[in-house]
Amino acid sequence: MLHDPNRVYVFDTTLRDGEQVPGCQLTTPEKIEIARELEALGVDIIEAGFPISSPGDFQSVVEISKAVKEPVVCALTRANKGDIDAAAESLKYAKRPRIHTGIGSSDMHIKHKFNSTREEILERAVDAVKYAKKYVEDIEFYAEDAGRADVVYLAQMVEAVIAAGATVVNIPDTNGYCLPDQYGSKIRFLKENVRNIDQAIISVHCHNDLGLATANSIAGLQNGARQIEGTINGIGERAGNTSIEEVVMVLKTHQVLGLHTHINTRNFYELSHMVSTQMRMPVQPNKAIVGNNAFAHSSGIHQDGFLKNRENYEIIRPEDVGFPSASIVLTARSGRHALKFHLERLGYNLDKEDLNSAYSRFLTLADIKLDINDEDLLSLVAFKMVKD
Amino acid sequence: MLHDPNRVYVFDTTLRDGEQVPGCQLTTPEKIEIARELEALGVDIIEAGFPISSPGDFQSVVEISKAVKEPVVCALTRANKGDIDAAAESLKYAKRPRIHTGIGSSDMHIKHKFNSTREEILERAVDAVKYAKKYVEDIEFYAEDAGRADVVYLAQMVEAVIAAGATVVNIPDTNGYCLPDQYGSKIRFLKENVRNIDQAIISVHCHNDLGLATANSIAGLQNGARQIEGTINGIGERAGNTSIEEVVMVLKTHQVLGLHTHINTRNFYELSHMVSTQMRMPVQPNKAIVGNNAFAHSSGIHQDGFLKNRENYEIIRPEDVGFPSASIVLTARSGRHALKFHLERLGYNLDKEDLNSAYSRFLTLADIKLDINDEDLLSLVAFKMVKD
Repeated sequence: MLHDPNRVYVFDTTLRDGEQVPGCQLTTPEKIEIARELEALGVDIIEAGFPISSPGDFQSVVEISKAVKEPVVCALTRANKGDIDAAAESLKYAKRPRIHTGIGSSDMHIKHKFNSTREEILERAVDAVKYAKKYVEDIEFYAEDAGRADVVYLAQMVEAVIAAGATVVNIPDTNGYCLPDQYGSKIRFLKENVRNIDQAIISVHCHNDLGLATANSIAGLQNGARQIEGTINGIGERAGNTSIEEVVMVLKTHQVLGLHTHINTRNFYELSHMVSTQMRMPVQPNKAIVGNNAFAHSSGIHQDGFLKNRENYEIIRPEDVGFPSASIVLTARSGRHALKFHLERLGYNLDKEDLNSAYSRFLTLADIKLDINDEDLLSLVAFKMVKD
Repeated sequence: MLHDPNRVYVFDTTLRDGEQVPGCQLTTPEKIEIARELEALGVDIIEAGFPISSPGDFQSVVEISKAVKEPVVCALTRANKGDIDAAAESLKYAKRPRIHTGIGSSDMHIKHKFNSTREEILERAVDAVKYAKKYVEDIEFYAEDAGRADVVYLAQMVEAVIAAGATVVNIPDTNGYCLPDQYGSKIRFLKENVRNIDQAIISVHCHNDLGLATANSIAGLQNGARQIEGTINGIGERAGNTSIEEVVMVLKTHQVLGLHTHINTRNFYELSHMVSTQMRMPVQPNKAIVGNNAFAHSSGIHQDGFLKNRENYEIIRPEDVGFPSASIVLTARSGRHALKFHLERLGYNLDKEDLNSAYSRFLTLADIKLDINDEDLLSLVAFKMVKD
């Protein structure tokens, strides 16, 4: 199945794990619009919904299946026939359908959620994959709460579901619990100990409860996973899912990892805004990659260095993720160099003495006024011309 | 200097690296209010400002020095006498003053920012530490852009500034460039190769441009660093600094690391809101630890598991970071179990058949209406009583 061993498949679950967040619910037409943009972004798989969960969700999977051509369209189920029947039905128009089924793999989930045993759960997992396989060829299996699961049992489960026909095995850190070295080791263990592991792709599905989702996903990829699951803007239940834009840009920035995706990174900024607006889920200004301040330099030290050579303070070119350009913002922490830059932009070339004098007036103003705009700058210069 | 080898010192730079962000500027009284709350949170060091940068910033350091008792108060400088004189002057009322001086350490910064040589920069670094040492005992040195610096040169610089009197050596990943294993290796190299390293504390100062600040900070601590620098809500230039709340909660959740801080984690939520409001810097709902959704469970699968045993989907108790309690929110993705929970909360104990019937009406409503409130729930039950 894997032609290029260094290619990382991108599995987007904005419309499933993202959309289930309080206040984020979308209508079917809105979902179709986002799905089309995800296709333009170049994601490999779109998880379109959880069909059994509501009639609206079922219908959305049907309509998204009709609307997109390239990406695999995936529907979520629990490990039971009713869920799988609904998923298969909802995917009937998909050019490349995938059923995503699974069950808890940690003892915590096995005992306290399913009131069951490891043996029984393993059997249910295998049965679900076999049942889904009757409908479609491409079956992804999720071992829920794998982050806290016993790794030997997890390996058994993974081996059994691959033997039953799973093409992708998803190892979720459902609760965002793992440290990167722990999660990476878990993936490596599977890669080294599951006999039929080369017949499936290992997928990483992380949550950000401790702020480690991106690092955990990268650790998984470094240890053999080749599919990454996440959402635009990292939206999702609780602290959210892995931010697709972060993982993709880590791979692009660190070519030493030798991994690549087929994502059109220049689409990130616009899609981020679309998702944020439609889902009513604000993106904080300091969000990595897509936040409005992500490329804004404001301190004097940074602005000075940036103006001398942008690579002093910029590891990603803003245009590579669709930003218009990096910004130099004037505040009380800005230096002379930044002030000079903006005055020149407005057509004023001041000599050193005049610049010093304008800078001192600028600082007094900037201590009072939060944002210094062009009008303020002009008043600084006008003031100079009257007084000097 | 280190009595407890497993204690991690927390260095807050919300009022310096955070406050320099466009639109975040605070008045001196606002800064004092936040500084007092940082003291209550239990941070070990408050970086109060960059005194040479503006008269307002200078005055803030003076007033914060007067206002707090326990934490070290720190002032930032570049590696020159004018900056250090101003810092020393601004700290004159501090019970425990620290001067934070430093210079670029990467070849990129040495060549393109300072137009200088490694030898000359090393000399300026040592001179700055010696000069600052005349004023105060506690000197922190930052090797700017250490993340991209040649590690052998970095080790030389660190050894020289410790010999000159630095008590803390800060190894910033100024541009948020490093992967966790790269950053961890850098810290380990210093720990193993700098001869006088035990005479100083290694500090980690990370930025979140690739979403890796928390993971990098933890990697640094795992490899010998014992001070972590960050801000509340991860605010800061571009994609921001390390979120203090995330690093502290990683250490608390993963006791296997054997590290601890003196932070009163129950103060996080309230302080997060105060900083967000005063600095006009929104926190996205899916922000780890302090976002409004950080502990909200909404999908049917999750709600059902959560109601059976909260540890199925909760690795941090919300009250440990000052949240009132975890929420179960009703949406079209919620299951019967969650609906039952809320109806019982309102005093309705429905039998299985009635619950099924109410659930089906609930789903129809939830597909249309984004948030289901108590009034909606009552109307569902009222509808039932009329119709059945």
